[in-house]
Amino acid sequence: MNAEIIAVGTELLLGDILNTNAQYLAGQLAALGFTVHYQTVVGDNAGRLAEVLRAAKTRTQLLVLCGGLGPTEDDLTKQTAAQVFGDVLIEDAQELARIEAHFAALGRPMTPNNRRQALIPAHGGKFTNDNGTAPGILLRDGEKQAILLPGPPSELVPMFEKRVLPYLRTLSDCVLVSRWLHVIGIPESQLDMQLADRLNAANPTTALYAKTGEVHIRVTARAETEADAAAMADDAAKALQDELGDAVYSADGSDLETTVVHLLKAAGAHLALAESCTGGLLAQRITSVSGASDVFECGIVSYSEKIKQRLLGVKAETLAQHTVYSAPVAAQMARGAATLAGAEYGVGITGIAGPTGGLPGIPVGTVFIAVHSPQGTFVRRAVWTNRSRQDVRIRAATAALDMLRRAVLGLLQPDAVPFCFENEEARA
Amino acid sequence: MNAEIIAVGTELLLGDILNTNAQYLAGQLAALGFTVHYQTVVGDNAGRLAEVLRAAKTRTQLLVLCGGLGPTEDDLTKQTAAQVFGDVLIEDAQELARIEAHFAALGRPMTPNNRRQALIPAHGGKFTNDNGTAPGILLRDGEKQAILLPGPPSELVPMFEKRVLPYLRTLSDCVLVSRWLHVIGIPESQLDMQLADRLNAANPTTALYAKTGEVHIRVTARAETEADAAAMADDAAKALQDELGDAVYSADGSDLETTVVHLLKAAGAHLALAESCTGGLLAQRITSVSGASDVFECGIVSYSEKIKQRLLGVKAETLAQHTVYSAPVAAQMARGAATLAGAEYGVGITGIAGPTGGLPGIPVGTVFIAVHSPQGTFVRRAVWTNRSRQDVRIRAATAALDMLRRAVLGLLQPDAVPFCFENEEARA
Repeated sequence: MNAEIIAVGTELLLGDILNTNAQYLAGQLAALGFTVHYQTVVGDNAGRLAEVLRAAKTRTQLLVLCGGLGPTEDDLTKQTAAQVFGDVLIEDAQELARIEAHFAALGRPMTPNNRRQALIPAHGGKFTNDNGTAPGILLRDGEKQAILLPGPPSELVPMFEKRVLPYLRTLSDCVLVSRWLHVIGIPESQLDMQLADRLNAANPTTALYAKTGEVHIRVTARAETEADAAAMADDAAKALQDELGDAVYSADGSDLETTVVHLLKAAGAHLALAESCTGGLLAQRITSVSGASDVFECGIVSYSEKIKQRLLGVKAETLAQHTVYSAPVAAQMARGAATLAGAEYGVGITGIAGPTGGLPGIPVGTVFIAVHSPQGTFVRRAVWTNRSRQDVRIRAATAALDMLRRAVLGLLQPDAVPFCFENEEARA
Repeated sequence: MNAEIIAVGTELLLGDILNTNAQYLAGQLAALGFTVHYQTVVGDNAGRLAEVLRAAKTRTQLLVLCGGLGPTEDDLTKQTAAQVFGDVLIEDAQELARIEAHFAALGRPMTPNNRRQALIPAHGGKFTNDNGTAPGILLRDGEKQAILLPGPPSELVPMFEKRVLPYLRTLSDCVLVSRWLHVIGIPESQLDMQLADRLNAANPTTALYAKTGEVHIRVTARAETEADAAAMADDAAKALQDELGDAVYSADGSDLETTVVHLLKAAGAHLALAESCTGGLLAQRITSVSGASDVFECGIVSYSEKIKQRLLGVKAETLAQHTVYSAPVAAQMARGAATLAGAEYGVGITGIAGPTGGLPGIPVGTVFIAVHSPQGTFVRRAVWTNRSRQDVRIRAATAALDMLRRAVLGLLQPDAVPFCFENEEARA
């Protein structure tokens, strides 16, 4: 079955807001097995909206609209779409009661134009709005259907997931189930070659999504029943996970910081951080996880050598001999943070995020990352050239999280040499 | 003159990527004075693309396309648009030489399909691509024109700003100039009432954009010449700034952290931070500013009371008497951080970001923010209820930055009472 997406709103045409609804709806419709050939944005103008709707209705079975369902004169999506679908709007007592109750709860008077939101099509249907006053609308004309959704994502997304999705599943002749693997340590270009057969397969499909410092893989299976599709998707995800091994850090959509916090928690371990060039970004990512306080003790963001020496016990002679941008300083920072907090794990990060400040032999983008653990201290040197300051910081924090993950899992092997160096090529 | 935007790419229809190009182009076209009535997304399909182009060409004078200019078989925007505009493509020697030089510099062989990128319309024009191989294309058919741009934003944006913008200025019969004011401390709903006359005015126009914890105001003036429009926009921005006073923290587009770093630098002052519930977010925002190392000394992210006492000198009896979520603890953290680092300014933040952990009388969303300065220590209590953990953290860091700004500017007056409390209502 084919579908198209029509977003209504002058603010989209002016570039004032990003059309995140279109991306959300496109992803949802694709996952349901609908084929989407067009997306359109049109302003709050009845004539142009009607023209767009007539063209879409001619070529497409299901139109999904968003925006323009509010109480003001500008909001004319419902009236216009009802006309194009040959329906009329009538006041729905239940919706009117909901809207009146909403205003009563706020202690505000309900202005007369809010009654417009209680209008629903005589021959269509409605989708209840649990997060706002405008109900979603269903219109039908023979084989053609339209679903009208409110514009605010905080209303659209829950309405779609709770009310619209079950309805659309009844229209679709197949079920698609997706699984996500999050991968770190293998570049996208290498995955692209290694997984070429899977990436070209028709069912299940496999797709790569490059993120800063990691790659997400989506596996989607299509079948007649949800159980069959889920089994196919699970099998394919399992086979991929076996192939990629330790590089897969999560198979349930969890991000890297959540994965690391849960691993530390399961190990009953605690963490302390010493950051220089990442400037608190690693602490911020760790503490963004609800429940991080069970494992996170403290983080020191030290821009001055004085603080590195005084709080973290970095030695003056090490600074003099190796400079502050060095593996030994990163290792001392990691150990110093762990000691200061009495934590089993410590991370030290020192480097040059840029855009200026490079030294001979230490170009901008060089970062030393150390993890102190009960098994020893591991240091990695990474060089991200031609990257923005923010990009170097994100990649360094991500690399530190991955080293922590591998340390807790016992995947970093103690080495004869005290420091393990690694070069990371900048990728396009 | 009217215009419309057509983005070409199956990945947009699948919801794999967000259509940021459409928002960028919409904003640019609006600023140039073009009226945009439609945006369309269509896949890499010659038949459907031609249909969309014919419909757009009938109703609109200027079509701006993006995507589908690459070397592969999928990339058929140029061929299809040339047909619709009645033009033919011929190989351009200069473009071919550029593409050959590009591959030579990479040390990679140029595959034959890359020659397709050197094709340009016989009767149209081209826009040089400084950041990739595909040139931009201009097509003309009588009064109708089309501009074809490459899809990657890293190529599209510089090409638009350097090559396309000057060309479009020659088509537009007016010039629009915008100025931005960034405002903190006045809610959007209050600005909406206070500035009602300006918000309804036709020229210059004034628009409000609510951001987390702050509001951005755009003033746009339209005139026949750039000088006239700039003078009108400057006058309107100046009048607004006079009306809003200290609440305007920047009039040049700078964000709050950049404004604060520059103020501290100008004052020759230094800064140290002690964060609890914001978990390093404030340090990360301050250090994201290039040049922050001139003012930023260190940040302590302390989740444990032990660290608060040992490093920051928070007193055990204060913790016992007031709990860790209190104004006296925030003040001791701010002073402790400043003392530790030998800095003139210190910030202390302690509170409950949630989603759980509320105490009797201290609901989730309560945050105490202290600024220690040469003029004294100031503490503010804010309560953000029904907000996500991340939202509370962002608002707390933003509020701390604003207190720092006001402290450096001497806008926080020493008070007879040691702590100044303030309640912040949650806004919808």
